[in-house]
Amino acid sequence: MSNNYDIKDINQAEGGRRRIDWAEREMPVLRQIRERFAKEKPLKGVRLSACLHVTTETANLARTLHDGGADLVLTASNPLSTQDDVAAALAADGISIYAWHGQTKEDFYWAIDKTLELTPTLTLDDGADLIFRVHSARTDLAPGVIGGTEETTTGVHRLRAMADAGKLLYPVIAVNDAETKWDFDNVYGTGQSSIDGILRATSILLAGKTFVVAGYGHCGRGVAARARGMGSRVVVCEVDPIYALRAMMDGFDVMTMDEAASVGDVFITATGVRDIIVKRHFERMKDGAVICNTGHYDCEINIPDLAALSTSVREVRANNDEHTLKDGRRIYLLAKGRLVNLAAAEGHPSEVMDMSFANQFLSLLRLCREGRGLQKKVYTIDRSQDTEIAAMKLATMGRKIDTLSAAQKAYATDFASGT
Amino acid sequence: MSNNYDIKDINQAEGGRRRIDWAEREMPVLRQIRERFAKEKPLKGVRLSACLHVTTETANLARTLHDGGADLVLTASNPLSTQDDVAAALAADGISIYAWHGQTKEDFYWAIDKTLELTPTLTLDDGADLIFRVHSARTDLAPGVIGGTEETTTGVHRLRAMADAGKLLYPVIAVNDAETKWDFDNVYGTGQSSIDGILRATSILLAGKTFVVAGYGHCGRGVAARARGMGSRVVVCEVDPIYALRAMMDGFDVMTMDEAASVGDVFITATGVRDIIVKRHFERMKDGAVICNTGHYDCEINIPDLAALSTSVREVRANNDEHTLKDGRRIYLLAKGRLVNLAAAEGHPSEVMDMSFANQFLSLLRLCREGRGLQKKVYTIDRSQDTEIAAMKLATMGRKIDTLSAAQKAYATDFASGT
Amino acid sequence: MSNNYDIKDINQAEGGRRRIDWAEREMPVLRQIRERFAKEKPLKGVRLSACLHVTTETANLARTLHDGGADLVLTASNPLSTQDDVAAALAADGISIYAWHGQTKEDFYWAIDKTLELTPTLTLDDGADLIFRVHSARTDLAPGVIGGTEETTTGVHRLRAMADAGKLLYPVIAVNDAETKWDFDNVYGTGQSSIDGILRATSILLAGKTFVVAGYGHCGRGVAARARGMGSRVVVCEVDPIYALRAMMDGFDVMTMDEAASVGDVFITATGVRDIIVKRHFERMKDGAVICNTGHYDCEINIPDLAALSTSVREVRANNDEHTLKDGRRIYLLAKGRLVNLAAAEGHPSEVMDMSFANQFLSLLRLCREGRGLQKKVYTIDRSQDTEIAAMKLATMGRKIDTLSAAQKAYATDFASGT
Amino acid sequence: MSNNYDIKDINQAEGGRRRIDWAEREMPVLRQIRERFAKEKPLKGVRLSACLHVTTETANLARTLHDGGADLVLTASNPLSTQDDVAAALAADGISIYAWHGQTKEDFYWAIDKTLELTPTLTLDDGADLIFRVHSARTDLAPGVIGGTEETTTGVHRLRAMADAGKLLYPVIAVNDAETKWDFDNVYGTGQSSIDGILRATSILLAGKTFVVAGYGHCGRGVAARARGMGSRVVVCEVDPIYALRAMMDGFDVMTMDEAASVGDVFITATGVRDIIVKRHFERMKDGAVICNTGHYDCEINIPDLAALSTSVREVRANNDEHTLKDGRRIYLLAKGRLVNLAAAEGHPSEVMDMSFANQFLSLLRLCREGRGLQKKVYTIDRSQDTEIAAMKLATMGRKIDTLSAAQKAYATDFASGT
Repeated sequence: MSNNYDIKDINQAEGGRRRIDWAEREMPVLRQIRERFAKEKPLKGVRLSACLHVTTETANLARTLHDGGADLVLTASNPLSTQDDVAAALAADGISIYAWHGQTKEDFYWAIDKTLELTPTLTLDDGADLIFRVHSARTDLAPGVIGGTEETTTGVHRLRAMADAGKLLYPVIAVNDAETKWDFDNVYGTGQSSIDGILRATSILLAGKTFVVAGYGHCGRGVAARARGMGSRVVVCEVDPIYALRAMMDGFDVMTMDEAASVGDVFITATGVRDIIVKRHFERMKDGAVICNTGHYDCEINIPDLAALSTSVREVRANNDEHTLKDGRRIYLLAKGRLVNLAAAEGHPSEVMDMSFANQFLSLLRLCREGRGLQKKVYTIDRSQDTEIAAMKLATMGRKIDTLSAAQKAYATDFASGT
Repeated sequence: MSNNYDIKDINQAEGGRRRIDWAEREMPVLRQIRERFAKEKPLKGVRLSACLHVTTETANLARTLHDGGADLVLTASNPLSTQDDVAAALAADGISIYAWHGQTKEDFYWAIDKTLELTPTLTLDDGADLIFRVHSARTDLAPGVIGGTEETTTGVHRLRAMADAGKLLYPVIAVNDAETKWDFDNVYGTGQSSIDGILRATSILLAGKTFVVAGYGHCGRGVAARARGMGSRVVVCEVDPIYALRAMMDGFDVMTMDEAASVGDVFITATGVRDIIVKRHFERMKDGAVICNTGHYDCEINIPDLAALSTSVREVRANNDEHTLKDGRRIYLLAKGRLVNLAAAEGHPSEVMDMSFANQFLSLLRLCREGRGLQKKVYTIDRSQDTEIAAMKLATMGRKIDTLSAAQKAYATDFASGT
Repeated sequence: MSNNYDIKDINQAEGGRRRIDWAEREMPVLRQIRERFAKEKPLKGVRLSACLHVTTETANLARTLHDGGADLVLTASNPLSTQDDVAAALAADGISIYAWHGQTKEDFYWAIDKTLELTPTLTLDDGADLIFRVHSARTDLAPGVIGGTEETTTGVHRLRAMADAGKLLYPVIAVNDAETKWDFDNVYGTGQSSIDGILRATSILLAGKTFVVAGYGHCGRGVAARARGMGSRVVVCEVDPIYALRAMMDGFDVMTMDEAASVGDVFITATGVRDIIVKRHFERMKDGAVICNTGHYDCEINIPDLAALSTSVREVRANNDEHTLKDGRRIYLLAKGRLVNLAAAEGHPSEVMDMSFANQFLSLLRLCREGRGLQKKVYTIDRSQDTEIAAMKLATMGRKIDTLSAAQKAYATDFASGT
Repeated sequence: MSNNYDIKDINQAEGGRRRIDWAEREMPVLRQIRERFAKEKPLKGVRLSACLHVTTETANLARTLHDGGADLVLTASNPLSTQDDVAAALAADGISIYAWHGQTKEDFYWAIDKTLELTPTLTLDDGADLIFRVHSARTDLAPGVIGGTEETTTGVHRLRAMADAGKLLYPVIAVNDAETKWDFDNVYGTGQSSIDGILRATSILLAGKTFVVAGYGHCGRGVAARARGMGSRVVVCEVDPIYALRAMMDGFDVMTMDEAASVGDVFITATGVRDIIVKRHFERMKDGAVICNTGHYDCEINIPDLAALSTSVREVRANNDEHTLKDGRRIYLLAKGRLVNLAAAEGHPSEVMDMSFANQFLSLLRLCREGRGLQKKVYTIDRSQDTEIAAMKLATMGRKIDTLSAAQKAYATDFASGT
């Protein structure tokens, strides 16, 4: 089945390869896994359909899975996130891939369907689009699937709802929830790359600006910390009182979006929920407001509402559309409301994807080995896998840490000692 | 049974009362609970033995429990943490209490035993000393106890080990693990109050100093953040690779205590484990190093090791003992290795104890109502209780937040929508 | 003339001595100066009247001046800043001193007048009270005075006005303006010690609070940074557009005091100007607002305005007075509007005073040597003195830095090289 | 003379115009100046040779000067900093310009010489290359020049040396030293844009990295703050003890470059001095070290030294050259050692250039009006100009600040009041 592809331009392969190598430098944990399993080939016989942002880091995961023995087809998990040179490099190196930057909705689902022609035994998702496709249009494939993995908070949330409703057709491992994933790529990865995307799309000075972050989950927390680090005054909007309170204690301002709309200079959504910024918010924004999204889907900002208020739209810079409203105010929408860190920058840095994708590989390996014995539920990752990945990572960073002696371990749970 | 007490000086009651009132200003959630249950008296018939740091915040909890109908006896959870004026105020106001600053070990256990004379139906712990006493010396009381609560990470850790070993004699609610407790008082409370304790005991400039934090759990994280906020360069020592990695990503230096010992100016332990700083560390510390502990017990710094190396000890300031070593170097031990935030400052600020103690009250209420149906295990708090407390707190801070519409809630778990 | 004193209690000398020694640990630059000049006695014959906050650091300066040969009389530069145990230690060790905590205005000037009985050849000021006294009440002494030094921004500002007006009677060195003073003790010293004072007087949680800083000069900047470091949201009030803009770029909120009055939880003034917080501000403050001052004089907060609005006043904690207003709101004034860092905590940490007082000593030495040749103007310190002090300080901190090679030095000013 | 140009491609004009307009949005102060002086045309008759980074902000300055009546020729102040679309837009709109990205050294000086064909009456410099050219190769022009302005720290430093040596041939205004320039564009502008350049050239995760900043002047301070804001551990190298001490107090690590070489992951120079990173440093760097420069010239990193150690060089990403050393280690040099913020990103954000260029315009206007009366020295800007620009800026940001009453002003210099 391999070696078929539909990409933008195979001639970009060389540049893509160089960038994939560059990313590989910062992915030492995945590299160790690749070196080890390239010999053992534990994924031999696996047919894997994968739907991921096609970035240099994903390319390294794909290489690792391929070297581990899997038969693999890859497609994009977002219409605007594919890096075409990377897709070219993968195709040129014999990995089947259907992905290009700027897909239409139809292209997007066509490509997902192409990956399903593999008749997968495992699925890999980033946002659950592929697994939902199996559950809606290709339920015939489900019995043959041993299990799947999911990379995002948004996807895991929905898969849990699906499992609770008794509608999940095969076991799924929530890679997202690994500590070495969730607490790192969602926080430090999304934090930095979202700022990076905003800067590339606008080149505005963040110092002195009021920066509104909707959502103070893992991603929102990362973005808020980095926006402050660049000198912005940060306002957080939340629906969860505990998260809102934490934002307060972290020194941020907390208000409703109705209040924030009129004070913000830059807005970013990171909620996993739709309609966070809607008509009434656009109506009270300052002239020149910049808005973007770093949540998985593009419905957090209600773009039809914005379009309805606008008399004209023009691209003033790459990934930066000026919407002129009837009253003359201008609102700048970045990356058409798609993930600003992937569409306007390069997504999460390799250093964090190193751990996320090590978790992906080990989870797929676990499914391959134990999947038939699992239930149709969402599983989490054992902390021992997390700990091992973190230990490998620290070692590659040249850091040593302490270890508990037997006496110390005993003490920590010794209910006979006291005061 | 009430009205008996053993405290330092009843004449300090008036000053204590003023300070308790001051704390009450910043405990609006507990105040609302008190106002409500003072009428309902849901704890009528309860006999509660409580072992807590005797601070102004604890006094407010005691008043709330008392007004809620409980028959209450209070003792201290640490020999050095009692605020004598607060103890006086409570005693003068008719609450039974056995606690004074500077107890010996014998005093400490004598006082615990006094609270057990109440034949409690509920126990309340901060560090599990009282509950361990029941399990070791007074197992005769256990059948009469409906349940207990525990306030600290250290205590919960041990009680879980006890339950796992099948040795727990009645159900315990891990108040510590409530998000509105753990993520707030352990982080922001310990963070600020530990810095406060160090400043009161030393008055040193933190800017420009190398500040070593052992342990990057909730408490350590709070301390590290605040030390940086005061201008220190922070070094973290850890045994957990995931926590160590997080410390790196948060911009801190990470090393072993063996490495840190020679570069640190100030050391603080927050691990829940003993022997974090021992002989070989003292041997390589700089002249003038300041060491302290903010973990629950006083064995994180091995004080006998330090004593064995010292030729003389003198108190240079309150809560600050100069140990002169054989080679002439001087090491300054704060608060004799006891919780520096409680012994040298005033413990967690009222604002966070407000939520922790609201959780305590509601957990005791739950035990009172449902306790007989619970197993001999460690229970966590429902997130709904957490959310309610956070919402009350935010409201008292004058903050409004967003709420999800029904359509948004449906969307968040709608596995039919996508990309 | 020496050996006369008027202090609170000579029996506190031993405790004072221990604390002075403690401070001396962190004053290695001044110690080196002391060791060197104790032999040379370059101040032999000098009669020095000094008006300074009587703290452990000042005591070390006094000892250094005394060992350097000066005949010295010391008084306090603020009615509430004297540490009585320090005054006792100095008196016991033979230094003439007139200072105690809690002076009345009459006491304050009486004590200044006592120091002038020395018929000084040099004066040393912290706030210019002594030098103003010479210029108003004791102009007869001026011809005998070779010169003076001034420690504060406020004092230097006024002395410059005085010199501009042709009314300055002898040369003054603006020690405040030394980089190793102004950029360190005003920023890091005031920053930390003001937070310290607020915590000792209130024990409130700073995280989550709105903290209003009036004035974004050196002191205000330090306080704002530390308040943020403790988790507060910081609002800056300014009159200088450049400073206000810098506060914005540093990520703080900027507004007028009229706007800030209703949003602040804690207010601190650091302006050098009177009437920063007045009647109309008190009228709109939240119930429970905490107000304090860290500027030199106690008129930045208009206390008579507050008193006129209040129906009762009581001390709820040390250095914390509750003012209950007619409408029931309560406002808490710390340290009666005096320097909160000195009155409620211990003033600037020794580490920064080390450099400030090294500058004082070297400036007095310069006046002693060159004073007769100077004009009746305000002089600044040579950058070479600053650089030397900084280099000594770094060395004592165990830090090495780079040095420019001759080629590099030449390059830096080589207008023949380019692009 | 106008309308002649030598640029890359006039067809890029439209894209350039859109980006210039985008920048103009964030330059409201310059826009107000432009609107005012477009009517008055106060620069009528001026012939201005200008050597500046050709960015969207410079284009707005050029438009303002042009509309103010000046006859203007523009060239680039760095071979790699020209944005070709901007050059095209200016040329298309009738402004004479000789600049393109990727000039050779010969091109660079040829272009400067072209601007001098205008026989300027004023010169405008960013790095002093043009003015040095006048002083070396075209001294014949000097008598006709009324004065010049200089934008950078590096340039001002050398011009002061030149003036001190009696070699400056006409008056120069040090625009760099304006508070609204130096304290803003050097700090916040260089800070953010250097990070931006590093991210665009590498996409590495800054969190967890050790980031070495050489130089803690205005630029270095900005970079250090932003690197910390992105989660890096920052090490500062300095030659000035005062600056080094300030870095320590700001919580950074301070060491020599010899020490830092082996611990750094990313290195950036911001010193204005050559040979900051040389052979012995490359020899001890970690495999994978990233090095770049944000100082004015490209000699801060000794590139010939690096080349001599390398066996091969290849471009792994845009502006990112991999140097493989003989021992196999790889060092990544960004932007060939040229200003990383200009060569790999877009230079200082418009918001700060707004003030810098307002200062440029007003300084040129002053020279035009008063220049003949000035001496051949380096002049600073009056604080009143600074204050006015800051006030305009704040107003455009929608911020109001306090003003001193007459009574308050009087108090601030009233040496009769006290204590």
